[in-house]
Amino acid sequence: MTVTAPKGFRAAGVAAGLKAGDRPDLAVVINDGPHDVAAGVFTSNRVCAAPVIWSRQVLADGALRAVVLNSGGANACTGEEGLADSAATADALAGLLGTASHDVAVCSTGLIGERLPMDRLLPGVGTAVAALSADGGADAARAIMTTDTRPKTAVLSGDGWSIGAMAKGAGMLAPALATMLVVITTDAVLDAEQARTALRAATEVSFNRLDSDGCQSTNDTVLLLSSGASGVSLDTREFAAALTTVCLDLGAQLLGDAEGSGHDIEILVRGAASEADALEVGRAVARSNLFKCAVFGNDPNWGRVLSTVGTTSAAFEPDELDVSFNGVMVCRGGAIGEDRSLVDLRPRRVEVVIDLHAGGEQALVWTNDLTYGYVKENAEYSS
Amino acid sequence: MTVTAPKGFRAAGVAAGLKAGDRPDLAVVINDGPHDVAAGVFTSNRVCAAPVIWSRQVLADGALRAVVLNSGGANACTGEEGLADSAATADALAGLLGTASHDVAVCSTGLIGERLPMDRLLPGVGTAVAALSADGGADAARAIMTTDTRPKTAVLSGDGWSIGAMAKGAGMLAPALATMLVVITTDAVLDAEQARTALRAATEVSFNRLDSDGCQSTNDTVLLLSSGASGVSLDTREFAAALTTVCLDLGAQLLGDAEGSGHDIEILVRGAASEADALEVGRAVARSNLFKCAVFGNDPNWGRVLSTVGTTSAAFEPDELDVSFNGVMVCRGGAIGEDRSLVDLRPRRVEVVIDLHAGGEQALVWTNDLTYGYVKENAEYSS
Repeated sequence: MTVTAPKGFRAAGVAAGLKAGDRPDLAVVINDGPHDVAAGVFTSNRVCAAPVIWSRQVLADGALRAVVLNSGGANACTGEEGLADSAATADALAGLLGTASHDVAVCSTGLIGERLPMDRLLPGVGTAVAALSADGGADAARAIMTTDTRPKTAVLSGDGWSIGAMAKGAGMLAPALATMLVVITTDAVLDAEQARTALRAATEVSFNRLDSDGCQSTNDTVLLLSSGASGVSLDTREFAAALTTVCLDLGAQLLGDAEGSGHDIEILVRGAASEADALEVGRAVARSNLFKCAVFGNDPNWGRVLSTVGTTSAAFEPDELDVSFNGVMVCRGGAIGEDRSLVDLRPRRVEVVIDLHAGGEQALVWTNDLTYGYVKENAEYSS
Repeated sequence: MTVTAPKGFRAAGVAAGLKAGDRPDLAVVINDGPHDVAAGVFTSNRVCAAPVIWSRQVLADGALRAVVLNSGGANACTGEEGLADSAATADALAGLLGTASHDVAVCSTGLIGERLPMDRLLPGVGTAVAALSADGGADAARAIMTTDTRPKTAVLSGDGWSIGAMAKGAGMLAPALATMLVVITTDAVLDAEQARTALRAATEVSFNRLDSDGCQSTNDTVLLLSSGASGVSLDTREFAAALTTVCLDLGAQLLGDAEGSGHDIEILVRGAASEADALEVGRAVARSNLFKCAVFGNDPNWGRVLSTVGTTSAAFEPDELDVSFNGVMVCRGGAIGEDRSLVDLRPRRVEVVIDLHAGGEQALVWTNDLTYGYVKENAEYSS
């Protein structure tokens, strides 16, 4: 049920002809209220797509009635015409719903640098509205896929309230944010400030810790819509914790379906003087192509970890660094530790622990290995 | 002739048994004077190898009589024992030459995190000294190769003086510096300050602009030795210009032999508000895996260039960015430019020009594409 699991939401996913082969490529999510509270976080990329510019604007008042999402084109780097296309898309949906355009967010994903085929997209909005239903969440989740091999959804039920979510993303996965579109719905009662605070807190420790390939997208968007239809009011921290659980679940699904990946790698940096130090080290290792190739080759290559840690500005002494792969401390005190042949890297999940021995802070970062499949998808697919 | 082209130098390259299959793996370069002026630049990686720590120390007085280099092991992350091994290597050569250990630099390259087999290395030093000759430069250049497919050498002749050089490096190529060992010799008369100034200037615009895979090594070392045997004194700027020519030549050879690469990519960032801005943008694009995969696929994917430029802090307006591939401006004003089908990316050399339209500064950066071959070499080879 995904985004339609909470009360007060309808959704649809249809084929508008933006992608080849009659695959679904247009999704609509409607908040039927009674509330229309919303919050969003967006890519920090300064080259951002027209729909990001549009949606950031319309979210300024903390309210949304609907979201229209398309795959088959990112509408990024398309100039003034691209901005007009995003506005026209919102206008079309607002007209059909009898609401204002500034209550409609727009999300796009696909190839950068090409105009959207508006002659197909606008009629598709009508088709989607006609198909809206209280169990249309699964169709919507399928319609936003690009190179994703499977839809990503999550549902969490509380006491009389729930959260539903859908996500897409398989490449350009890097903080802030991964190349992802995420729509999260809830029927919990929230005000705009609560929604904003909870969404920022949840994305900071989930999507913003995901770095599959170091490449930031132009289109990343995470939206939270609250209908308040459950009538249940929640403490902000309680809701943020539940939202974080949902975002971590979706993040793990994104990682598990990252283009061409063979391993999901969790990097825990501990013993850091600050959380910022731990994050800097984790992100640097997550972006080391040599490290990522080694994991693809099932090689617990701690030398490539240390040589990357050495490029950071974090507090540490080189002869105090410990590195473990899947529980085996192959590097101790910056030098040779336990026998690397004790490490089994064949399972998809890999845990790397780096201890800086410089303090009590830590951070988790997730990444993938660098594989033939990644190169193949990104040499042959234009995004 | 490489490092033995200038007067006053002898060299040798021998097989000490550090690498499998009786391949040469130990090189010695001797400065017979009359001068013993020297300068060096080293990796900025805080996790640096024992030979880097040793060589940085012995170069503090601006003088060197000899360099001993080995492939088959990086002697990095090897703790106190590794430091003792580097010192013992210098001691062995110094003893045979009748000079002090602190006049001998040591360079190592190969696998990180393993002790060097000193029982084979030390006898090899004796073998190399016995083989020293005034035309041993080519043997020395071959002995320092790891995954290099060919030796890298350069010679430049001035009016009565010359520069000779050898280099190795095929992976972990990133500033500062690439994974490289470089020994440059000259018979020009230089004082230590001149040598240091010229070497810094030359490496800054050559090796430090090379970023094949974003991974900094633990062992990078560039050494300059002056014998003064030509008796010709040079202005520092004149010598620095010649030295820069030699370093650019070697840099191009490193790029052309980078592991698994299919394209050499030159990125010119112009119209920048500062050289630092131009460099930040150039380096960010050079590290974008999506951009590098696109070039491998012969795809002039300007969207991936713009999405990377957008992650930098350089001064620019997104709707003023121009991007050309091999002379075709496929992106103009941050949006769609000329037809991308006009771009032919089949030749090995690719020129990308990014115009920020924010000022009059510029910088050149070089990188390679990301290929199946890169993944294969780095998944199967431990370094």
